[in-house]
Amino acid sequence: MTELSPLCHYDVVVVGAGFSGLQASRLLARKYSVLCLEAAAQVGGRVRNHTFANGDTVDIGGQWLGPGQDRMYRLASDLRCEIFPLYNRGDNLFYDGTRLHRYHGTIPKLKPHVLLDLGRMIRRFERMAHQVDPAKPWAHPRAAEWDAMTLHSWINRTGWSAQAREVFRIGIGAVFAAEPHEISLLHALFYAASGESLEHLLAVAGGAQQDRIHGGTWAMCKAMADELGDACQLNAVVESISYKADGVSLCYRQAGAPVCVSARCVILAMPPNQINRLQFDPPLPAWRDQLFQRMPGASCIKCVARYEQAFWRDQRLSGQVASTQGPVRVVFDNGEKGKSAGLLMGFVEGDTARAWSDKPDDWIQQQVLETFARFFGEKALHPTEFVLKNWASEPFIRGCYAALMGPGTWTSAGKRLRSPEGPIHFAGTEMATEWFGYMEGALQAGERVASEVHARLSRHLEQAIK
Amino acid sequence: MTELSPLCHYDVVVVGAGFSGLQASRLLARKYSVLCLEAAAQVGGRVRNHTFANGDTVDIGGQWLGPGQDRMYRLASDLRCEIFPLYNRGDNLFYDGTRLHRYHGTIPKLKPHVLLDLGRMIRRFERMAHQVDPAKPWAHPRAAEWDAMTLHSWINRTGWSAQAREVFRIGIGAVFAAEPHEISLLHALFYAASGESLEHLLAVAGGAQQDRIHGGTWAMCKAMADELGDACQLNAVVESISYKADGVSLCYRQAGAPVCVSARCVILAMPPNQINRLQFDPPLPAWRDQLFQRMPGASCIKCVARYEQAFWRDQRLSGQVASTQGPVRVVFDNGEKGKSAGLLMGFVEGDTARAWSDKPDDWIQQQVLETFARFFGEKALHPTEFVLKNWASEPFIRGCYAALMGPGTWTSAGKRLRSPEGPIHFAGTEMATEWFGYMEGALQAGERVASEVHARLSRHLEQAIK
Repeated sequence: MTELSPLCHYDVVVVGAGFSGLQASRLLARKYSVLCLEAAAQVGGRVRNHTFANGDTVDIGGQWLGPGQDRMYRLASDLRCEIFPLYNRGDNLFYDGTRLHRYHGTIPKLKPHVLLDLGRMIRRFERMAHQVDPAKPWAHPRAAEWDAMTLHSWINRTGWSAQAREVFRIGIGAVFAAEPHEISLLHALFYAASGESLEHLLAVAGGAQQDRIHGGTWAMCKAMADELGDACQLNAVVESISYKADGVSLCYRQAGAPVCVSARCVILAMPPNQINRLQFDPPLPAWRDQLFQRMPGASCIKCVARYEQAFWRDQRLSGQVASTQGPVRVVFDNGEKGKSAGLLMGFVEGDTARAWSDKPDDWIQQQVLETFARFFGEKALHPTEFVLKNWASEPFIRGCYAALMGPGTWTSAGKRLRSPEGPIHFAGTEMATEWFGYMEGALQAGERVASEVHARLSRHLEQAIK
Repeated sequence: MTELSPLCHYDVVVVGAGFSGLQASRLLARKYSVLCLEAAAQVGGRVRNHTFANGDTVDIGGQWLGPGQDRMYRLASDLRCEIFPLYNRGDNLFYDGTRLHRYHGTIPKLKPHVLLDLGRMIRRFERMAHQVDPAKPWAHPRAAEWDAMTLHSWINRTGWSAQAREVFRIGIGAVFAAEPHEISLLHALFYAASGESLEHLLAVAGGAQQDRIHGGTWAMCKAMADELGDACQLNAVVESISYKADGVSLCYRQAGAPVCVSARCVILAMPPNQINRLQFDPPLPAWRDQLFQRMPGASCIKCVARYEQAFWRDQRLSGQVASTQGPVRVVFDNGEKGKSAGLLMGFVEGDTARAWSDKPDDWIQQQVLETFARFFGEKALHPTEFVLKNWASEPFIRGCYAALMGPGTWTSAGKRLRSPEGPIHFAGTEMATEWFGYMEGALQAGERVASEVHARLSRHLEQAIK
């Protein structure tokens, strides 16, 4: 595959410097020689900061922490990153397609029969999710049945009222950045189980959108990368991996120049849709290649409008919106602690994000601002700055928040998803058994793989001593 | 992306020398300078011959022609390839999990209520399929509904009797090499419409399994490649494509050496799962990258056992089997015209093919032969030769028969699937509006793209003259 001989040898090469790859790297670097390669010009993976004209920053990638995400809170504390709660005072808004309604908490104010129906749907969903072991969703007695249908089919079959089904779908869109027909019922149940419950994933206070990091979650990645120093290389695009039982040879391109290194093992900490884009020698087994073919990335465009003031707060509005009508169905007040500027953040998701992916930025901005104005009035049309990030356009990422498991994926080869392929280990949030799709999951998978690799390398050591 | 300057300039570069790429190349070569690049060591794509010890050959890839596939019949005649019918005399066998039953035609002999139910399922399916325009499946008024559910859900909802559902599923497995939950109802309807009807796709005489090519369908690809001569290059692995409105620069690796060429346009005639593995500069738009992420390949292992004699013919058996029990659910007599050796061919499909993809060949052989013996007796255990081909293991292919559209794919970005991306045109059977998934579809897409390219190049010529 290459004519160059390896320039360097490492115990471990880690591909990808998002939360997962960085965590694995720093844990392993305490004991082993580690090289962490990041294809982009900055670390963070699906986590990134945007810097406004005055130097303020805002998260344009993963941003929230919540109860149950113990690794994230511990890491933030270790790295001396300050945590603050998402702005959550005042009323939320629900837009039903014609009118705005104020409400409190996670569930909008709906007609009693809709509310009853929605409550029943959520309870049924949670009851099933509670039975699914996130470490092995394929093992549930009804896994085959639940994996053979789309979540959409289940919603249609379960919800009696059209509006309850619609509100349930808004929740799914917000949690997955996907259409409910893109995922299997089993994956939705697994996902909720891996993040405690669907209600937990939907909630702000006490839930997965509770807290943020001062200066952006990217600050955490930056701090981890700084610990690694030269062991973390940017703009290093891995092209090929040759492997046998006891080692790998890996070639990457950095600033146009080819570099080859060898290692005792490699950790791929990247979105599954990216793995098959590497050249493997020998090729990955058919089942694994086909499995990654079946893990497409979700799609979202994260949009942030910046205003002089958070003017909605004066009207006792929290900035949070749920809307049955697109293009933006979910909005949050993304104001940074201690800053006076108001930030409204909205997601464009699923099919709409794909359809808009080759629209000009200013056209998207106009659509999003008009939606914000529908919720918060004419003032919302005039931000001082506007930023959008389409994660499906981002090279080396190509989807967000995470990979989706369509019908049949978990029950086909899913049980072997997290198993190493000889000396190739797999990390990234999609390899997590807790908090799949979240930064916490990225850490969990990174830590699990670091243990796998430690076990492998210390076994080697023992054998060498014998 | 590369430091090498182009060595050569062409009007068109075609990537992939299967039926689609070869047909586009030979049509365009009449008028333009064409370079056709094939990554494998031979042409044919998903069509290939195996040569037995005595020099006889057998198809281990695509092999059948049937009525309605006018392009294939015309091409076979142009290339002087002889057509002969699949052996289709005597009784077929149906295995219901406990017993063997003899029957005639496409539908096994079942209990009257099962037969009634199956007939009703097929009629309902055909009625819906008949309404779907294969040129634009997304345009049907119920497209969103049909694309939001799996075919499995539809089968479960529609079939009253468990056995009718089971037999329907065998048919789907045979037609798609996939589990019914891997595809959306809309895709199944589109697929049937693109190949006339589901019954047509299932039938032997008068249907899609009617005829074969003497010496293998690969002989047709070989003849097309011979016409192209040096314009068709083997072992040429394309790595990167840089493009702008009026041209492309393309780099490939041949025998380890990098080669770069430029062209006015490029045709990608390869399985969709392979397209995202190329490096594009600029990257493909998000919607298109995400669309290809959602077109995984189906999975099948094609197995052929060779015997001294076609001993089942003496028992007045056709060699055709449908079985509700795996691993092999569909068997055919694959005997070559004018040869005395008997050939039994069976498919291992979908989840089983994936689960078996890293089993040793002799283990698979044993399982398959035991299944053959269940149908044809102990003699089937002792072939003189045995060959198997797992198309999901094949580099540059990674799935067979064709790409699958899971729920949501057609109705999301499907309508833009066949549109060119600047100077990049898309061929291959997955870009066909007729006979998607078949060799006929590969030809149709190749011809359509050849016209697109001709229109582009003659427009350029006109502009140059003005």
